Amino acid sequence: MTKVVILGATGYTALELIKILLRHPHVEITAASTRQEGSPPIHTIHQSLTGRLDLNCEDLTPSEIATRGDFAFCALPHGASTAAIPDLLAGGCRVVDLSADYRLTDPGVYEKWYGLVHTDPTRLGSTVYGLPELYGEGIPDAPLVANPGCYTSTAILGMTPLLCGGFIEPAGIIVDAKSGVSGAGRGLKLGSLYCEVNEAFKAYGVEGHRHQPEIDQVLSDISGESVSVTFIPHLLPMDRGILCTMYPRLKRPATQDELLACMREYYADKPLIRVVDHVPSTKDVAHTSFCHMTVRFNGDQVIVMSVTDNLGKGAAGVAVQNFNIMAGYDETTALI
Amino acid sequence: MTKVVILGATGYTALELIKILLRHPHVEITAASTRQEGSPPIHTIHQSLTGRLDLNCEDLTPSEIATRGDFAFCALPHGASTAAIPDLLAGGCRVVDLSADYRLTDPGVYEKWYGLVHTDPTRLGSTVYGLPELYGEGIPDAPLVANPGCYTSTAILGMTPLLCGGFIEPAGIIVDAKSGVSGAGRGLKLGSLYCEVNEAFKAYGVEGHRHQPEIDQVLSDISGESVSVTFIPHLLPMDRGILCTMYPRLKRPATQDELLACMREYYADKPLIRVVDHVPSTKDVAHTSFCHMTVRFNGDQVIVMSVTDNLGKGAAGVAVQNFNIMAGYDETTALI
Amino acid sequence: MTKVVILGATGYTALELIKILLRHPHVEITAASTRQEGSPPIHTIHQSLTGRLDLNCEDLTPSEIATRGDFAFCALPHGASTAAIPDLLAGGCRVVDLSADYRLTDPGVYEKWYGLVHTDPTRLGSTVYGLPELYGEGIPDAPLVANPGCYTSTAILGMTPLLCGGFIEPAGIIVDAKSGVSGAGRGLKLGSLYCEVNEAFKAYGVEGHRHQPEIDQVLSDISGESVSVTFIPHLLPMDRGILCTMYPRLKRPATQDELLACMREYYADKPLIRVVDHVPSTKDVAHTSFCHMTVRFNGDQVIVMSVTDNLGKGAAGVAVQNFNIMAGYDETTALI
Amino acid sequence: MTKVVILGATGYTALELIKILLRHPHVEITAASTRQEGSPPIHTIHQSLTGRLDLNCEDLTPSEIATRGDFAFCALPHGASTAAIPDLLAGGCRVVDLSADYRLTDPGVYEKWYGLVHTDPTRLGSTVYGLPELYGEGIPDAPLVANPGCYTSTAILGMTPLLCGGFIEPAGIIVDAKSGVSGAGRGLKLGSLYCEVNEAFKAYGVEGHRHQPEIDQVLSDISGESVSVTFIPHLLPMDRGILCTMYPRLKRPATQDELLACMREYYADKPLIRVVDHVPSTKDVAHTSFCHMTVRFNGDQVIVMSVTDNLGKGAAGVAVQNFNIMAGYDETTALI
Repeated sequence: MTKVVILGATGYTALELIKILLRHPHVEITAASTRQEGSPPIHTIHQSLTGRLDLNCEDLTPSEIATRGDFAFCALPHGASTAAIPDLLAGGCRVVDLSADYRLTDPGVYEKWYGLVHTDPTRLGSTVYGLPELYGEGIPDAPLVANPGCYTSTAILGMTPLLCGGFIEPAGIIVDAKSGVSGAGRGLKLGSLYCEVNEAFKAYGVEGHRHQPEIDQVLSDISGESVSVTFIPHLLPMDRGILCTMYPRLKRPATQDELLACMREYYADKPLIRVVDHVPSTKDVAHTSFCHMTVRFNGDQVIVMSVTDNLGKGAAGVAVQNFNIMAGYDETTALI
Repeated sequence: MTKVVILGATGYTALELIKILLRHPHVEITAASTRQEGSPPIHTIHQSLTGRLDLNCEDLTPSEIATRGDFAFCALPHGASTAAIPDLLAGGCRVVDLSADYRLTDPGVYEKWYGLVHTDPTRLGSTVYGLPELYGEGIPDAPLVANPGCYTSTAILGMTPLLCGGFIEPAGIIVDAKSGVSGAGRGLKLGSLYCEVNEAFKAYGVEGHRHQPEIDQVLSDISGESVSVTFIPHLLPMDRGILCTMYPRLKRPATQDELLACMREYYADKPLIRVVDHVPSTKDVAHTSFCHMTVRFNGDQVIVMSVTDNLGKGAAGVAVQNFNIMAGYDETTALI
Repeated sequence: MTKVVILGATGYTALELIKILLRHPHVEITAASTRQEGSPPIHTIHQSLTGRLDLNCEDLTPSEIATRGDFAFCALPHGASTAAIPDLLAGGCRVVDLSADYRLTDPGVYEKWYGLVHTDPTRLGSTVYGLPELYGEGIPDAPLVANPGCYTSTAILGMTPLLCGGFIEPAGIIVDAKSGVSGAGRGLKLGSLYCEVNEAFKAYGVEGHRHQPEIDQVLSDISGESVSVTFIPHLLPMDRGILCTMYPRLKRPATQDELLACMREYYADKPLIRVVDHVPSTKDVAHTSFCHMTVRFNGDQVIVMSVTDNLGKGAAGVAVQNFNIMAGYDETTALI
Repeated sequence: MTKVVILGATGYTALELIKILLRHPHVEITAASTRQEGSPPIHTIHQSLTGRLDLNCEDLTPSEIATRGDFAFCALPHGASTAAIPDLLAGGCRVVDLSADYRLTDPGVYEKWYGLVHTDPTRLGSTVYGLPELYGEGIPDAPLVANPGCYTSTAILGMTPLLCGGFIEPAGIIVDAKSGVSGAGRGLKLGSLYCEVNEAFKAYGVEGHRHQPEIDQVLSDISGESVSVTFIPHLLPMDRGILCTMYPRLKRPATQDELLACMREYYADKPLIRVVDHVPSTKDVAHTSFCHMTVRFNGDQVIVMSVTDNLGKGAAGVAVQNFNIMAGYDETTALI
């Protein structure tokens, strides 16, 4: 059994992570941390865990946490992760970080988009980006993996094959993205209230969203070209699910079958990706760690559609996938 | 044109009130108050009012408000209403109070359920309870009307005919009530977050809810008997609508037709009540000021079902109905 | 009072139409037709009309209908409209047609997209397209007005000012559109079942949707250029509302303020259009006949966002707006 | 590996069953039947199964099915089950029947509520009712298990401890039940359309619902008293989840702690039941096979609240639980 600890246990991502780990045959959750006082039992924070996980949420230091587990899932807000992770690593804990703190390689870009001076910049360049379908070889031995953003994964997984296959232009890709509300977290914000979101739909972050530089960075790195996307997220009146509808420009004439074949070949041995013939719905992958995608033509315009569950493949699912690879378990353990 | 002012303009009830009043041919909204600083234009608080109401939300004293309108709709939290209303009345303003402050006749009961010592107890006994179908004769000349609670109206309207008709026992009436989320207001509460409410259903206030003594008081007053109900509210994953499913005990044998006839006769001349043959849905009355109800037998058990829109007949709609009666307009102006 | 009749009374659009007309001070609904047998009272088809409209749905011929009203709202399926409208017009009835039958000017395009040979092609070229903000001058005297499609109106209203202002290229406009489920009608289709749509989001009609040629036709006509859009609709898990997020290419450098000013000027005297400073939500216009829109830059990419209620400004609201103009009433009667 | 087949593979219950069985380490799904022509691949019926289950839905006779598996899950409509099950059993297949066909012991009661003459009445008395917490001892050796109804399980599990503990009266128990829409199945019914259900709430089956005699039968059998309930179901605007709010009458004075202790003791060794201290939400058990319950007092009135996922513990989850017991696996395999 591998002992794992969870930092930041009160949010939706942590809850999803716990539910997945409870199905994992080789994992024991040994601690859960939160800044809340009084060490509340975790089932008072997440009622659905009543009788399933007998653990109190403790206000622990990173050093204390490092003594409690071999692996840590860090579900803290950005900024808080960099405050905890160096000590976790120093204490011998390997870490999957679900925050944005170690995703971007350039501390200047981080500062611009997150409004914080990065306090652990030397690790930025060397931390592996935890999208196993693209960066799988760096994960088995990594002490720290930066789990990708949910929009980011969905967009990147959809665009990578056609980009690397030389079918599409690296510039001017439009990513019209839509996400369920759980992606906004469990914080008390007016915009997350039921009556603000229900029976409502709108765009947000229209003039620039933090996932845009992350998408550009990864697609550029993976394709060797300078990729720039227009990324426009929207909030869907539902719990979970992301659909990215993407409009790239063709570099050279191609048929739909060629594009589908390119996608299929790229992900041929990837157990959590499905290139499908139909138009995918977010519901097809809800409560799973799968990503479904397809490609279509509308006249001359290529449209790539990619769906994930923002809490699954978009957050907790890929975190456990990364953990499985780091710990030497089958990549899909507890995930399918 | 009657000049009206709105106190507490940031909530959902105030928004609904404004939308109804914008359709009212004899009303001009002359001021809207809020404690927010900076006198924000109202459309920055309620985007849907953009281009429809050109008004800033001001932080006004009750005395200032009284100089701005002939009528005030007071959509403040309980406690805040008693702090404002005496000055509004002293300033010559007639008031429809949408809070709970003047609904209960006994200051001790108010203190028990609202945790506050009532600061204007002398008005408690003399304030008319603003359910026009029951207390219509006291409304035309009232300086102050206490608008009922949303659950309360829905339950009371449904039970009154059979109770006054002598068909049912006053004791042991079970009121299983369900409400949309807008009834919980626009405050930042964990329980009002989209992901807590969506795809979820549960009871709350099970051991006692503030609308229970209000229901008991009004049904006892109107029937002349000592009525006590078991009132169990539930939160529905939807914006608007209340259904009360009520289980009274029959006092004497009766047929369904007799019970329906009793209801129909009681509300024969009431323009906003519909006794229907079918089983009513909350959606039938959503975005209206109507109350639909019916009665059925399941074996020997009588079941009364009554639906309203909690923001309509349950709050803003009945407030405008009260205002219309006070101001001498047709009762249904702007409401049908 | 103007006597109006409604053909095809069982759908959601007809219900919305009736609710609007019940608030109209100069309208009497004199008949409602349906092919259902037995002349059911309309409240058995639409429970919410109980006690509000005392009318049976009759299986009437167009000639009979023409004797019952001065105006007809035709909410029939496409194909059925052309079968009824010539007789309605011959009978002296003026008609607002909510189907697609008279929207397209080219019978070949109609046949391609609707799979039907048009049976009244001579009226195609001469029928006014009922978007009053663009074609208002032809409506007052029109015997027949072709009410636009819901997606169509939302996209066209959003793109017209910038196109006519010479700011954007006519080719390659991407229209990523999202609609609530009521736009799919009340027919029994697997894809309209609650459990298929709820907590789900997907694109449909990706390779070509009927509203695409309609958008192209109208934008080309109004701008004098050959406009072609890529139109990708998506189904939102909610009742009502359309958002079109549109990505045109700039023809010449411009600032956001210039683009907003262009929009504002274009719609300066249009009472149902609001060019807003904020990012609009479908909920802002739900249950209204308003269209809200704005424009933003993301880097160099222009994004136009436009929202309507698909049953309001997208269908029944604009139908009543057209009727008001035809009948000589104020354009916004019963609509604001 | 145990070979299992699924009859009636197109519905929501079958999909849930398949998803659970895909996680089962000892099960291979060897066939899925449907009356649809052309043997469609199952992922064309359930898109979410793409790449997860490579199987065509075949139109098989019961005898053919019996050659394909050791166990059959029968998710056919009532009436169709009795037509298939005798042949399945004769062919050596053991069966979990998810229809209502073998739940009631009296063929007359079955005929009254289902409108069909029972064609296999001799099995009625001897078939075990598949609620393992109550009838667990009969399941290991049963050839056929009658899986309970979803409302039924939720109500029965909640009421049984207090009834068997002698705390409450067997007569006059009010069961106010609320269910998500998936309980209504995947058939094309007007009442299952998104726009009919969304933002709507109403009761149905008010004068008598098929689960009422089933609840009465089981509670009477288990308590040895003649139990009769008033059962009023309501339709919730959500996919999954049942809450039964139940109002029994106390037989003798008791405290809340005594009632909770009675519940806890009754289910002490039951791995899928949780007696909780808080008020349970349907969301706590969504996508699981757990049942959560508690009890409260409101004045003198006892309120029992019990929640399940209607597709989980209410249907597919309990079916797999029954299968596990029949096949000799741990009761909770694939379920927690």
